[in-house]
Amino acid sequence: MAFPPINPAFPHLWHGGDYNPEQWLDTPGIIDEDMRLMGLAGINSASVGIFSWAALEPEEGVYEFRWLDDIMDRMASAGRHVVLATPSGGKPNWLALKYPEVRRVGENGLRDPQQTRHNHCLTSPVYREKVLAINTRLAERYKDHPALALWHLSNEYGGWCYCDLCFAAFRKWLKEQYETPDKMTSAFWARFWSHTFTSFEQVTCVDRSVHGLSLAWKRFMTDQLISFIQNESAPLRQFTPDVPITTNLMGTFPMYNYIKVAEHLDFVSNDMYPDWHGERSLWREAVAVAFLDDLYRSMKGGKPWILMESTPSSVNWRPISVLKRPGMHRLASLQAVAHGSDTVMYFQYRKSRGSSEKYHGAVVDHVGHEHTRVFREVSQVGADLAKLGDLCGASTDAEVALIYDWENEWAISEAQGPRNEAKNYEETVREHYLPLWKMNVPVDVIDSVQDFSKYKLLIAPMLMMLRPGVGERIEKFVASGGTFVATYLTGMVDENDLCFLGGFPGPLRKVLGIWAEETDVLRDEHSQTVTPVDGNPLNLPASTKARHLCDIVHLEGAEALASYSEQFYAGSPAFTRNVFGKGAAYYVASRNDEAFNAALIRSLVANLGIRRTVAAETPEGVHVQERATADTHYLFVMNFTETQQTVAVGADGYTDRLTGAAVSGGAVTLAPYGVAVLAKGL
Amino acid sequence: MAFPPINPAFPHLWHGGDYNPEQWLDTPGIIDEDMRLMGLAGINSASVGIFSWAALEPEEGVYEFRWLDDIMDRMASAGRHVVLATPSGGKPNWLALKYPEVRRVGENGLRDPQQTRHNHCLTSPVYREKVLAINTRLAERYKDHPALALWHLSNEYGGWCYCDLCFAAFRKWLKEQYETPDKMTSAFWARFWSHTFTSFEQVTCVDRSVHGLSLAWKRFMTDQLISFIQNESAPLRQFTPDVPITTNLMGTFPMYNYIKVAEHLDFVSNDMYPDWHGERSLWREAVAVAFLDDLYRSMKGGKPWILMESTPSSVNWRPISVLKRPGMHRLASLQAVAHGSDTVMYFQYRKSRGSSEKYHGAVVDHVGHEHTRVFREVSQVGADLAKLGDLCGASTDAEVALIYDWENEWAISEAQGPRNEAKNYEETVREHYLPLWKMNVPVDVIDSVQDFSKYKLLIAPMLMMLRPGVGERIEKFVASGGTFVATYLTGMVDENDLCFLGGFPGPLRKVLGIWAEETDVLRDEHSQTVTPVDGNPLNLPASTKARHLCDIVHLEGAEALASYSEQFYAGSPAFTRNVFGKGAAYYVASRNDEAFNAALIRSLVANLGIRRTVAAETPEGVHVQERATADTHYLFVMNFTETQQTVAVGADGYTDRLTGAAVSGGAVTLAPYGVAVLAKGL
Amino acid sequence: MAFPPINPAFPHLWHGGDYNPEQWLDTPGIIDEDMRLMGLAGINSASVGIFSWAALEPEEGVYEFRWLDDIMDRMASAGRHVVLATPSGGKPNWLALKYPEVRRVGENGLRDPQQTRHNHCLTSPVYREKVLAINTRLAERYKDHPALALWHLSNEYGGWCYCDLCFAAFRKWLKEQYETPDKMTSAFWARFWSHTFTSFEQVTCVDRSVHGLSLAWKRFMTDQLISFIQNESAPLRQFTPDVPITTNLMGTFPMYNYIKVAEHLDFVSNDMYPDWHGERSLWREAVAVAFLDDLYRSMKGGKPWILMESTPSSVNWRPISVLKRPGMHRLASLQAVAHGSDTVMYFQYRKSRGSSEKYHGAVVDHVGHEHTRVFREVSQVGADLAKLGDLCGASTDAEVALIYDWENEWAISEAQGPRNEAKNYEETVREHYLPLWKMNVPVDVIDSVQDFSKYKLLIAPMLMMLRPGVGERIEKFVASGGTFVATYLTGMVDENDLCFLGGFPGPLRKVLGIWAEETDVLRDEHSQTVTPVDGNPLNLPASTKARHLCDIVHLEGAEALASYSEQFYAGSPAFTRNVFGKGAAYYVASRNDEAFNAALIRSLVANLGIRRTVAAETPEGVHVQERATADTHYLFVMNFTETQQTVAVGADGYTDRLTGAAVSGGAVTLAPYGVAVLAKGL
Repeated sequence: MAFPPINPAFPHLWHGGDYNPEQWLDTPGIIDEDMRLMGLAGINSASVGIFSWAALEPEEGVYEFRWLDDIMDRMASAGRHVVLATPSGGKPNWLALKYPEVRRVGENGLRDPQQTRHNHCLTSPVYREKVLAINTRLAERYKDHPALALWHLSNEYGGWCYCDLCFAAFRKWLKEQYETPDKMTSAFWARFWSHTFTSFEQVTCVDRSVHGLSLAWKRFMTDQLISFIQNESAPLRQFTPDVPITTNLMGTFPMYNYIKVAEHLDFVSNDMYPDWHGERSLWREAVAVAFLDDLYRSMKGGKPWILMESTPSSVNWRPISVLKRPGMHRLASLQAVAHGSDTVMYFQYRKSRGSSEKYHGAVVDHVGHEHTRVFREVSQVGADLAKLGDLCGASTDAEVALIYDWENEWAISEAQGPRNEAKNYEETVREHYLPLWKMNVPVDVIDSVQDFSKYKLLIAPMLMMLRPGVGERIEKFVASGGTFVATYLTGMVDENDLCFLGGFPGPLRKVLGIWAEETDVLRDEHSQTVTPVDGNPLNLPASTKARHLCDIVHLEGAEALASYSEQFYAGSPAFTRNVFGKGAAYYVASRNDEAFNAALIRSLVANLGIRRTVAAETPEGVHVQERATADTHYLFVMNFTETQQTVAVGADGYTDRLTGAAVSGGAVTLAPYGVAVLAKGL
Repeated sequence: MAFPPINPAFPHLWHGGDYNPEQWLDTPGIIDEDMRLMGLAGINSASVGIFSWAALEPEEGVYEFRWLDDIMDRMASAGRHVVLATPSGGKPNWLALKYPEVRRVGENGLRDPQQTRHNHCLTSPVYREKVLAINTRLAERYKDHPALALWHLSNEYGGWCYCDLCFAAFRKWLKEQYETPDKMTSAFWARFWSHTFTSFEQVTCVDRSVHGLSLAWKRFMTDQLISFIQNESAPLRQFTPDVPITTNLMGTFPMYNYIKVAEHLDFVSNDMYPDWHGERSLWREAVAVAFLDDLYRSMKGGKPWILMESTPSSVNWRPISVLKRPGMHRLASLQAVAHGSDTVMYFQYRKSRGSSEKYHGAVVDHVGHEHTRVFREVSQVGADLAKLGDLCGASTDAEVALIYDWENEWAISEAQGPRNEAKNYEETVREHYLPLWKMNVPVDVIDSVQDFSKYKLLIAPMLMMLRPGVGERIEKFVASGGTFVATYLTGMVDENDLCFLGGFPGPLRKVLGIWAEETDVLRDEHSQTVTPVDGNPLNLPASTKARHLCDIVHLEGAEALASYSEQFYAGSPAFTRNVFGKGAAYYVASRNDEAFNAALIRSLVANLGIRRTVAAETPEGVHVQERATADTHYLFVMNFTETQQTVAVGADGYTDRLTGAAVSGGAVTLAPYGVAVLAKGL
Repeated sequence: MAFPPINPAFPHLWHGGDYNPEQWLDTPGIIDEDMRLMGLAGINSASVGIFSWAALEPEEGVYEFRWLDDIMDRMASAGRHVVLATPSGGKPNWLALKYPEVRRVGENGLRDPQQTRHNHCLTSPVYREKVLAINTRLAERYKDHPALALWHLSNEYGGWCYCDLCFAAFRKWLKEQYETPDKMTSAFWARFWSHTFTSFEQVTCVDRSVHGLSLAWKRFMTDQLISFIQNESAPLRQFTPDVPITTNLMGTFPMYNYIKVAEHLDFVSNDMYPDWHGERSLWREAVAVAFLDDLYRSMKGGKPWILMESTPSSVNWRPISVLKRPGMHRLASLQAVAHGSDTVMYFQYRKSRGSSEKYHGAVVDHVGHEHTRVFREVSQVGADLAKLGDLCGASTDAEVALIYDWENEWAISEAQGPRNEAKNYEETVREHYLPLWKMNVPVDVIDSVQDFSKYKLLIAPMLMMLRPGVGERIEKFVASGGTFVATYLTGMVDENDLCFLGGFPGPLRKVLGIWAEETDVLRDEHSQTVTPVDGNPLNLPASTKARHLCDIVHLEGAEALASYSEQFYAGSPAFTRNVFGKGAAYYVASRNDEAFNAALIRSLVANLGIRRTVAAETPEGVHVQERATADTHYLFVMNFTETQQTVAVGADGYTDRLTGAAVSGGAVTLAPYGVAVLAKGL
């Protein structure tokens, strides 16, 4: 099945990136050269206007669009398109200094000076008004421009403001949510330490000791961002109803609930800067990337997403930023496409000459010409993408869903106890993703409020917070035949971070058939041993070293499939299964090692008959991902190792789109960092 | 000998803890259930009202006591008592926002928002007035209530405020202490860096470079807390002259001089949260706990102290908070009793549902019933304490005193040099406590201004600061026959942190018979070797590895018992003895290892004929502590190991109060974490 | 050749240090004792008045000089002299509190309280006026005093202020430098992130993301210090035109460009506190010290510098401050003289009794008498210096210059990328100094704007920033026959931190004959191998392990002398030579190990016939330095090891000035930490 392209006027894979010609207007010849080099690199898109406010409105109410007209026209006449940004990511000096309210106030109550970027108050009426004005001008001016393909709102929205305007809005929001101070007090358990609220006016700070308040703040700030986005979007929607809107998000950035934000975007975009050749082995880094890719593909129901930023060579902000090795850029770029991106875009097109990002990788380096290794690598990607144009909109179907839940992350990160070190929520979710990646099983990564009724297998590691209805929906999922996997620290708090009374895992106690009485917390130098019961139906390892956290549970209908072998709770269940309705629910009581997770997932995939993109095992570090349109099936065969690999892809009939060669012998051979995109008619 | 009970109306050991029913008023049935469960757990006490201000005075001047009346009545009718708290530990929102002056100002000059707890200004007249008003209401209302057993002032007083009110009070205090700016300048050596004061008005910050000023600030804040306590106590003393007053202190919390604070309390209370099963071995952790226990017992001349808070299972605030293993809670609880506590009390009775302490251990867990491991462990302690009722008030006599001095800790922690890493004052004192614990010698832990004339042996590690008269009192102590042990870094500064001129250890130079010329500072990877002189009268180890600090000393009447074997000062004295009058004074010039300390203490105990609770050696990790009333002698035999131990306690005649069994064969056998409380008529 | 003495009235080596009698005026007998002890220790100088403002002007406009008159007179009558300080390093309380503007504002916008020292605003007109007034009084009063030898401005100037006065001055400065906001915007690349300036008024903070602005700030603050110094100096120049002016600088303290500051001083002074017996081996620490010594000697064209502060025993501010071992103080003191200091001076003469420096080493300890090890060590130095009086003004000629450039350090430290960890600029320069030290080659350490035309060999490690004309001057230097060595990360930015376009190393591309395309960044656990080409003309090691940074370069006229052996750029040049005009330019593309640097420098020294102080190799840890007057040649032979060493110094004819013994057999034997000062007539 295929989704429509991002913009039907540009129905191919996009190749481009951040482009700031306004930095170069006084350097002769640069724009001409930029256009020439785009052609050489197979670049068909440019993200323009990001941080350009001072160039577009040099004085309050005085607009300057000539330079942008020129770029838009040049792009159009070259048959390329423009991702046009609203400029709100960086405030001009005149704005920041004339209207102090637009600058954020920190948690210490001090207002920021005008510096860096991404530090405007989301609430300030003045800022919203000024953003509305410039966005309106942009939309009016370019609404019919043939180059305009997509709106790019602001840039990497991030951070919070603690000003009086924000607190006034927060109090209003709280009143809408909780109606009376007394109800809010109860919801926040604020009688604790005498924090009882007798008026909403008493909310004047985000007290970290009142977790419900911290949660409310994060929800409020998410809503505040959404209304900011709505304000930004209004003139764009009005003047260009057919031009989609996106903004570049940042992985699992925790300050806003992206799942809610995404509802207000036509497409989601992600900025991806993996630490290739870094601390982790290459293929483990690839797993972390794939996890995020699948998260973004799942955000809008499988619709293609946009890789808005990546680096053609290295970043400049890590303590140690390693150059991408030859071939790595191509592999990394096609990995994004494999997992559902319809673009490969960069920060940045031309490396800036000064200030903080002057050493960040770019397509065109300070030397200025095309005779660089990096330019050649980019050109290769340009050529590849051109060969994959019909892939545009292709979808990926998954039978497995893994829950990564933003608000649960908030609950875990704010929690004091049971273990404050190595809480590892995202890491734990990823540890459950890894064996699926190894087995080449397509996975959706979703939030607990997204629909999961269609999956065969639902895995929800560390789902500490159960928002209203989630427990019931999981129960129904299992009763209807689904298989559900939960872990330690599940079902402990409700949406206000109040503990469930009557026994953990709260609303999931029945479907899981267990009661978790205590959580043993292990020091780093200690471990617990988990041993399968006789018969070992899921082929678990003979002995697993659990670490960090071990729930001590009692069976209430479930059966134990493994038990602990050490400590005062030796013999008690460590892993349970509860057959419930037509399905089954598993509880993994301890933080287990990779072998345990692999065995568990492997057995479930096999037992449930879950589809893998290729039937045979693939070598370590190789992954095969799939996408499909109505008439073509694509396999991306990717080698995240530094040695040559041969991969059995099964039956012939595939053609390698990048080389044009037909696959024979049911296998392809990949060079180090190699990638093949195999296609077959359906 | 026995002291009277904490409150003669409740002449037994108390078992209870923090109880916040006001958090649960809107949860039906909870209070009834609380009362039922107290009965099951053998709980006879509840600490109520801590942080309850907002529940007691929901609006300014509007009081609400019904819920508290109900709890008081229920406790009384069940034959239990209440430790009633004043609510000043947490401010209601209305108070904090209407009267900003009650909120603290940080060292950076910014006033705190209303958040968390324990952050009121100690000086604010408004705060003192409001505290006085609510305390007066509480005292009036409950003065004749049969459940009222003890006043619990506020909660864990802590921290400083840097507001204008505090500084005005500080200037007044300085004037009282120092009379003229010139005298203060001299006392603080403030001509240094031109800090000369020509007016008290010039004191507007706590300049860390002027150590005398930092010291004065800490003394002032101690006095400010005392006057705050006096203000809190006034209505309690007026309406309930027979109800004692305490507040829960926190070990060696450095911000106030607890020795001075304790003078204003009828009983001292301590909150104890050892890291059992943590970084240290169990018995070493037990030594650290015992050291603090003895410090608290010694604070009020041997009077029983109150274990006000401890956790029945785990805390929630350590990076890694481990569950107490089965039996550990009983052992830990009885250890406190062994060292002089007449209570075992918890934070908290019922686990709160939300906010920052919801994962902190409690008697009643979120599950709500009694069928939990922790509840059973608590009930066991309840049963044990019931069997030990006649122990109430029993005392412990010590022939050894160890000095741990709050103001000395201030001097050491503020000092720049001679070694800024691993100053280890408390640790060093504890290193001298450890061999006494191993030998089962009762010890008092006192401040340098407390009376030490009654002891046979006085050990004062690292007593850098000698306040007025201390040197003279030590000299007299030795002249009269006492044995005194000092170490490196002793006698360097007076009470204003001015170095003694004329040679260290200043006022102790004569009694110690040495001059300490320099202090060699060793890097962590280096050590010095200390070798006994021929004959080795104290049976020191053949060679000790000293580390960190080595004083280079000259004999002035003392004899060397050991000398250094390395570096340019090889051959010079490392350990000396000076016979002085009827006694002797020892100088330990270097930071020595455990073997040295053990040998030194062992020889002194033997030579001085100091009494041990049991004559025979006990196995590593076992400790025997004693208490006695007029007619009964108790031995607490405690096994801080995870293996069974047999302990020779000497002659028979003892009965184990917990089991009722008579001791036979002069020995008891303890299970892992086991404890026996042996009693014998006197 | 010999320079004139610091002050012709005191034509000998100075021995003295910080002396604060005003701290002791109320302690009877101290001043008399001080004078007596100076005589015993061979002390002929005292640095008086540092931080004495409150003693000199106890109230605004009320002066008190009697105590200072007394000291000046006593010094004069004992035939000693005084280094007289202006008191601006510490503000009296009355000044700080009456005129808040004199106290600094931090980067967070909050004004400092009156505390510590060195924290006045450099811009404040009030502060400048008050400093001018007191300095005028001092100069008037002592202008004809026979003890007055040198002015010591303030103390260790340091730090920045962010107050409105400073920003107003900064904006004025920017306008002078950049003329229009638009030119400034271009120079700072401030269109980036919409930082475009349309008015100078928009500069209200030091935005770290705009590197050009950060650089400008540091230049401004340097200029602000210079004008502060000019204000301080004006009355001194007026009343005492013949008394030289200095201030004590601090090694490579980065906040001001000392090279510019030095232009406004008659002599430069340095405060030196090496970590002898610390983390590094003794001789490596000695290399670090010698590097700084040579930097200071080179600051004023070879003129003797002033060791203004050092400690006779230990400091008190390191985490671990080790005592100088016996003999170390003498060796360290003479090392400074060997490298061009005409003084050995201390902080401090008499140890202060209280406050933060009371445990810092001093000549006279708290014990107060001369019978201490440290006093004896100081007296030895006093005796030594007395024997070396005719050395005064002796110079050192170097044929090698090494560039350490303050502004380049700014560029490197602010840069984001390519590697943010272990940038190691100073360390890298020192790594190139080390082999020269080992070979006993005299070296000048200069800034890139100082003249280097006179040297045979110019080494400029990591010269990332090329200020105007520097590239041209280097090209001319090589063309004229000089040998030039550059490394990776050279020639990347101009004076505004704008990258050079068209290919790195920018202006040096032609003279080096290479183009550096990329910089590979290595993680700590990785390395690259550098292998010499066949023939290996510079005798490089067979294989070098490079780390951290490897430039990937292309030859453009240069020849490769070594190449990389690993990674995708294996075989590409790692070390190149370009014969250019009459000279040659080398490019060291990678951060190499000590063996590579040693081989490179050794070959260059040999090939260029560069003079060494002694021809033969000296044992590891021994260094021979030279100075010469018109008629005498001095060799300082120093043993920075803890074992005896015999050093071949070549032909006889030398006499050891310290022992009076003639050198025979062409060699001297040095005890551990030993030093010989050999002299021979010319």
